[in-house]
Amino acid sequence: MRTIAASWVNGHLEVLDQTKLPLAETTVELTRLSHYTKAIRVMQVRGAPLIGIVAAFGVAQESLLTKDMPVQFFQRRISKAISALAATRPTAVNLFWALEKQREVLKEYGDKPSTCARRMLEAAKAIQSAQVAAERKMAEASLRLLPRKCTALTICNSGPLATGGIGTALGSIIHAYKHGKVTDVIVPETRPRMQGRLTAWELEKAGVPFTIIADGAVGLALKAKNIGAAFVGADRIAANGDTANKIGTYAMAVLCREHRVPFIVVAPESTIDRACPTGSGIVIEERDGDEIRIVGGKRQMPARWNAWNPAFDVTPNSLISFIVTEKGARRGGRLR
Amino acid sequence: MRTIAASWVNGHLEVLDQTKLPLAETTVELTRLSHYTKAIRVMQVRGAPLIGIVAAFGVAQESLLTKDMPVQFFQRRISKAISALAATRPTAVNLFWALEKQREVLKEYGDKPSTCARRMLEAAKAIQSAQVAAERKMAEASLRLLPRKCTALTICNSGPLATGGIGTALGSIIHAYKHGKVTDVIVPETRPRMQGRLTAWELEKAGVPFTIIADGAVGLALKAKNIGAAFVGADRIAANGDTANKIGTYAMAVLCREHRVPFIVVAPESTIDRACPTGSGIVIEERDGDEIRIVGGKRQMPARWNAWNPAFDVTPNSLISFIVTEKGARRGGRLR
Repeated sequence: MRTIAASWVNGHLEVLDQTKLPLAETTVELTRLSHYTKAIRVMQVRGAPLIGIVAAFGVAQESLLTKDMPVQFFQRRISKAISALAATRPTAVNLFWALEKQREVLKEYGDKPSTCARRMLEAAKAIQSAQVAAERKMAEASLRLLPRKCTALTICNSGPLATGGIGTALGSIIHAYKHGKVTDVIVPETRPRMQGRLTAWELEKAGVPFTIIADGAVGLALKAKNIGAAFVGADRIAANGDTANKIGTYAMAVLCREHRVPFIVVAPESTIDRACPTGSGIVIEERDGDEIRIVGGKRQMPARWNAWNPAFDVTPNSLISFIVTEKGARRGGRLR
Repeated sequence: MRTIAASWVNGHLEVLDQTKLPLAETTVELTRLSHYTKAIRVMQVRGAPLIGIVAAFGVAQESLLTKDMPVQFFQRRISKAISALAATRPTAVNLFWALEKQREVLKEYGDKPSTCARRMLEAAKAIQSAQVAAERKMAEASLRLLPRKCTALTICNSGPLATGGIGTALGSIIHAYKHGKVTDVIVPETRPRMQGRLTAWELEKAGVPFTIIADGAVGLALKAKNIGAAFVGADRIAANGDTANKIGTYAMAVLCREHRVPFIVVAPESTIDRACPTGSGIVIEERDGDEIRIVGGKRQMPARWNAWNPAFDVTPNSLISFIVTEKGARRGGRLR
């Protein structure tokens, strides 16, 4: 399956280097385990569903490279690969979910390395296909929630670049645009990594009108623009519906409630972490302060200045109007 | 009087070029009217009180340069200068207030250009001195509002660089630090112009510990950090207390109420626009979208992408815990 973000071609994964977008479209070939861990860590690939997909292919790649080794060596290498991929980023649960799937394959077929490698590649491809199918269902369920023809608000990037298919939250927005329910999209730039640029890049490709704003302008946009709904993705959803997503999402949810604008989380079931009862159990990744101090490769602040750079925040279920997965829309942010 | 932001020296105004901070400390000499209008427009000087001070000196400069002309020419030139300065930026009311002071001088002494020029310089200096004195009073009034030893939150820059003296909101924070009531400061970077860098630069000079965050992290900071109060400046306060300030201030106020953190506006009386009954009457400046698309001189997004760049938003009085001026603290954001 070929997708814009990641395609398995000629025995390895080709990914679009998202750190170069929108200024350049560069493909990176991931042929060794270290390429996969690096791609996730430095955010050449990002977005919770895509991280899971790439990690699954990373395990498959390692199994293909080591399938001719003695069984014990093979098993040790694959276990190590799974650990290395699990250590790349802490918040998106899809990563651990996908690695768990591969661990199960290892358990079942680990004593036959060649079979195991084939099964692992099949498993990775199945995760990608299932994500694509799930996103179409989410987009359909989201469409029914839109109260009226309106401007949509989002944050970060949850489109094709973040997932296997059409995207989660942004997939729903583009789908609603095609059905005449969304007229245009307000796109916060989403500092520090400016993933709003990825969203704008995708909306431009899809022919959907959009407006970039500074993150601080979300409040005024809710006052001044015809925003009918906010659609956001998720990196992890606790069992009670508390949702971790890009830093700034929590503030957006508070502001949406203030303006009586529905706040809708769109994510696959694999984002739900049933082992995590509430949002307080979600580990929030803190990234290097230089992501704030350096913009576009140019230093804006001295390295000695203290910066705090949490990549995510948690929105309590009470602020969520709907959680949409491939199983449909659940009202009120409460999962059953 | 010499201040860090602007000093009248040898017959002209010397200002620190704030667009170059914190990476370079460059002084710009304003010797002609066009230098003053440019300095305000391109934000070499910014911050509502400072804009008023620089505009007042701009009128004085023009009067000194034209005082030997025939009376009619002189009067026409000064009127034009006032109009040109009034057209630089629309939101900060201190600008119009300071120009109105100079218009009164023109009315009274316009038929004696030499006297008028002298009086205009005196008026500009008086505005600067009054601002310095006012800020000390504001800092003292603010100190009494602090509930406990805590971290302070602010936005944009309201320190010495934004004013004539110690600063408004940031002056209050630094004063409270010196009195052991504030331990450190959370500084949102304040996109798109990143005036948070100016605040950090000033806090570093004052020896106050600080942490820079992305604007989207304000919500999580209110959850995770020991924030006891938010202090913000103002560009215009309507007669009912509705307050225009840097974009993102409104969202911060909503989040402060959500977390029961006092939200305190600190600004001189000259920021209050009695002619403007409510915030809906305040003109919000919309600046060029390239301020979002280009960061640190480097293009981050193509010029064709639509960007909306309002420089300010309005916080309704209901979200304001106190408005502090040189007359003291008024509770509840309501002015009498």
